Amino acid sequence: MSRIRGAIVSLSLLATPAFAAEPIALRDMGSFHVGGRLVEISGRPVKEVVFTQGGVPAKIDPNGTYQVEQMYVQYFLPADEKGAYPLLMWHGGGLTGVTYETTPDGREGWLNYFLRRGWSVYNSDAVERGRAGWAQYPDIFKSEPVFLTTSNPFERFRIGTGPGWDPDPAKRKLMPGSQFPNEGYDNFTKQGVPRWTTNDDATLAAYIAEIDRVCPCVILFHSQAGAFGFKAAQARPDKVKALVAVEPAGVGDPGRVDALKGIPSLLVYGDFIEQDSRWPKIRATGAAFADGIRAAGGTAEVVDLPKAGINGNSHMMMMDKNNAEVAALIQTWLEGKGLTKKP
Amino acid sequence: MSRIRGAIVSLSLLATPAFAAEPIALRDMGSFHVGGRLVEISGRPVKEVVFTQGGVPAKIDPNGTYQVEQMYVQYFLPADEKGAYPLLMWHGGGLTGVTYETTPDGREGWLNYFLRRGWSVYNSDAVERGRAGWAQYPDIFKSEPVFLTTSNPFERFRIGTGPGWDPDPAKRKLMPGSQFPNEGYDNFTKQGVPRWTTNDDATLAAYIAEIDRVCPCVILFHSQAGAFGFKAAQARPDKVKALVAVEPAGVGDPGRVDALKGIPSLLVYGDFIEQDSRWPKIRATGAAFADGIRAAGGTAEVVDLPKAGINGNSHMMMMDKNNAEVAALIQTWLEGKGLTKKP
Repeated sequence: MSRIRGAIVSLSLLATPAFAAEPIALRDMGSFHVGGRLVEISGRPVKEVVFTQGGVPAKIDPNGTYQVEQMYVQYFLPADEKGAYPLLMWHGGGLTGVTYETTPDGREGWLNYFLRRGWSVYNSDAVERGRAGWAQYPDIFKSEPVFLTTSNPFERFRIGTGPGWDPDPAKRKLMPGSQFPNEGYDNFTKQGVPRWTTNDDATLAAYIAEIDRVCPCVILFHSQAGAFGFKAAQARPDKVKALVAVEPAGVGDPGRVDALKGIPSLLVYGDFIEQDSRWPKIRATGAAFADGIRAAGGTAEVVDLPKAGINGNSHMMMMDKNNAEVAALIQTWLEGKGLTKKP
Repeated sequence: MSRIRGAIVSLSLLATPAFAAEPIALRDMGSFHVGGRLVEISGRPVKEVVFTQGGVPAKIDPNGTYQVEQMYVQYFLPADEKGAYPLLMWHGGGLTGVTYETTPDGREGWLNYFLRRGWSVYNSDAVERGRAGWAQYPDIFKSEPVFLTTSNPFERFRIGTGPGWDPDPAKRKLMPGSQFPNEGYDNFTKQGVPRWTTNDDATLAAYIAEIDRVCPCVILFHSQAGAFGFKAAQARPDKVKALVAVEPAGVGDPGRVDALKGIPSLLVYGDFIEQDSRWPKIRATGAAFADGIRAAGGTAEVVDLPKAGINGNSHMMMMDKNNAEVAALIQTWLEGKGLTKKP
């Protein structure tokens, strides 16, 4: 062990931000795309494009068939599997699967956390995001993409208050006791990707295609994926064994909560919700949906982290300084639901 | 071992396309973004956006500071490191780091191949691609993105001939003896992402930022990244220990080949080049650049796979059916240059 630690320090301390305490043994790792459809475009003029400076021009005929609305999934399968099912991770809006990787300040994220605890983790980029690719608009995607300034998530994700982001970390007004790694905030803004507001149906369809390929499974989902997680489970109730909703911004179909009565659900909310302009209503929508699941005879638990003695969490709790503490709460809940293998 | 193999078969045969013969032991894995710059946008009206169906509207002020032109790097560090330096993998145009992951027909790609041979692999998404994100145009990016039909790469990457892609794999006219996994071609089209033709400087700057963070290193690069690989090495000759150019579509500055004389370079070309409309010239440009490196006193070897007895390779040789054979040729070359650790 000391030899391995020595190798880590000498070879990669500067190159890699996260320091791993123990090796990770994988029986396999890889990726695939899933879902999507073919679309025809016609009637456009042929273009000549020089792809590389000084390169040889290529004729590009924009007419023809396009592959669109697929999603990307990367998987890591531990040699010593302890989860009873694979764990799918679905990110929030304007983001990708990077959400669950190394935190913006260089610590281990939830992907490594759950992988180290023996879960087969399937981390993904939703339709239109990251390695899923995106399609031309307005021909195929029906709206324009939305881009966010460096200030926007700073306030909207309850990291700090106005006047918002400042290039000098010391000049930013953080929420009192904020757990967000302020010194990594600029790295966090590099994780952002454009988003559309009109692709919800395509995104849900691709998530269901992922379920049909990978599950039975547990799904952990964040923010915008709140609606996708609950709706996908409603569409495939036999294939989803548990739902972990991390600050879901949307919910499933309230008229079909009975489909979820056999699927234990955990909803987790962070700190600073009461004083926010939008989050009290968002949280209330989630809590009401959980009430509906329970009224239908199911199990849905709502955890407000401050009431559980865990304070200071932003909307991005998977990258907050206490991200391992929040992950441990989820891990304990999953163990309590019998979703880990018996020793 | 039989216990582990049993677990693979029972748990993940359907869920995971690639079957790994032996576990992969990592001392760490993670990701980071690097490079980029801040840009100011002003004078635009504030929008109200409903991000999630049925969600709470949020005010989006498009004016402010944007983080743009960063790139994404994912790293896998083997517990038993055998490469003398980290191995950086740079993908080609309209693609992402997925190029080196599981092949479109579900076999192991070059990321796993070199990781299993003890290389610390840093696989990336260049500026504007995948998890690197992209910036609004024409404000920040100066051209429109280019989208490719399903037919376009089929011919341009020397997989098959006209009339191009057909939804029925049996109706596609493949190159004689093609090694491309035709049955996975539709999955390959899902890996494609839009590209711009005006971001070369930003892309090169981000790659140099990656070098400054991770290297000394070996860089393996493909297609469009030909220009980036050679130019980045010319900008940081002390940090680059070897270059593996896989069908480079561009080259470095011919007037500065002397900067590369201390960096052994390997250029690898596949099959079906002579009968292509563009590839004879592209290959000749690469071979002439290699001549220049040698004339400056350096080492640059050009390998045409058919002349080495390896036939049928497309432009995407890292996903061809014989991808392990081509990788072994590269691995042997790296070993011959003393770039693996002494046992």
